[in-house]
Amino acid sequence: MIQQDAALVCFSGGQDSTTCLFWAKKHFSRVEAVCFTYGQKHSLEIEIARTIAGQANVPFHLLDVSLLGQLAPNSLTDPSIRMDEDKPADSYPNTFVPGRNMVFLTFAAVMARNKGIFHLVTGVSEADYSGYPDCRDTFIRSLNVTLNLAMDEQFVLHTPLMNRDKKAVWQLSDELEVFDLVRNQTLTCYNGIPADGCGSCPACKLRKEGLDSYLETKNK
Amino acid sequence: MIQQDAALVCFSGGQDSTTCLFWAKKHFSRVEAVCFTYGQKHSLEIEIARTIAGQANVPFHLLDVSLLGQLAPNSLTDPSIRMDEDKPADSYPNTFVPGRNMVFLTFAAVMARNKGIFHLVTGVSEADYSGYPDCRDTFIRSLNVTLNLAMDEQFVLHTPLMNRDKKAVWQLSDELEVFDLVRNQTLTCYNGIPADGCGSCPACKLRKEGLDSYLETKNK
Repeated sequence: MIQQDAALVCFSGGQDSTTCLFWAKKHFSRVEAVCFTYGQKHSLEIEIARTIAGQANVPFHLLDVSLLGQLAPNSLTDPSIRMDEDKPADSYPNTFVPGRNMVFLTFAAVMARNKGIFHLVTGVSEADYSGYPDCRDTFIRSLNVTLNLAMDEQFVLHTPLMNRDKKAVWQLSDELEVFDLVRNQTLTCYNGIPADGCGSCPACKLRKEGLDSYLETKNK
Repeated sequence: MIQQDAALVCFSGGQDSTTCLFWAKKHFSRVEAVCFTYGQKHSLEIEIARTIAGQANVPFHLLDVSLLGQLAPNSLTDPSIRMDEDKPADSYPNTFVPGRNMVFLTFAAVMARNKGIFHLVTGVSEADYSGYPDCRDTFIRSLNVTLNLAMDEQFVLHTPLMNRDKKAVWQLSDELEVFDLVRNQTLTCYNGIPADGCGSCPACKLRKEGLDSYLETKNK
């Protein structure tokens, strides 16, 4: 049975996907969340995601795709590879797992279909584009077509953050009335520290720049 | 380093993918095989695949995507669901795992890229089309574009059987000089019996019809 008013959110407990979770709750009457684990260094990330989903009263599903980490070693899944402090100028950051979003969204679609859900929500953005090709709008649109052909269904992929930089994501969370929740509970930091994080990894820098910029505008 | 003359074959040890394995060996100087396990009833299938790959002198990789079976229950992975003797007229056969080929090919692409391989070979066919949307040429072409966008690479998906019915697949195996190997060693039967199989499941019927038809033409 198709649930026209239901959505499945790809959810990690970070700033972006938490904002998407509450965006989905505003736009759909039934929302579920799926979290992917693939050998991340920080299992705290999963517990944070589970807690936030519970607070949002959203069913939480955990899928173990650790196979992905075995296929393409990288610094997020392999402790022996040192995290880059900054993105190398001439290549992807070494946190990049090629094809990661494609694997996540394909599994999410299989799971959603089994539940009669055909709206999928993901927090990818090309505004503060980190060099990940699978965050681009063109990729998402192509994937949407491929998923529909693969399963002969009519999935709709939603990317509410696609054109929002981090400042605009903070603004959206404020509009959705979850600014404090996102600021105090989410985990974005590559070094596994919730809320404002370590302050020095690329994810913390990006998050803080956006936050400072949004607060400056808001307090004017 | 891109290996222009290398291919990764999605390989199950069945008639179709075994024919594709030897097709790839004819067209590429370096060939590897990847076999997906997802809770199939018959682990014999995997051992047969491993044996044939060994005989072909092709590196054999096994990927456990049993997660897929958990997401969408069906008769291939769940012994409590009875195998249909024949395909229901108005729906998919109940061996259908929605999105299966998309998951397999996406993982294969991630693995291939990590090896510097960008040619992927799969034995899907729309000639004796069983109602699986992810065997259609349109799906494969869309997937090819999506994979390239996802990873910013230039994968090429090869489907040597796309327009061959089972008779033509037998003919191809004969041209590739592996007719006897395919006939005597592969496992296609849903009930897990190698070579000519149980004779009564849909896969055995299809295989036998093609074989009889090819032998009739050949012996004229």
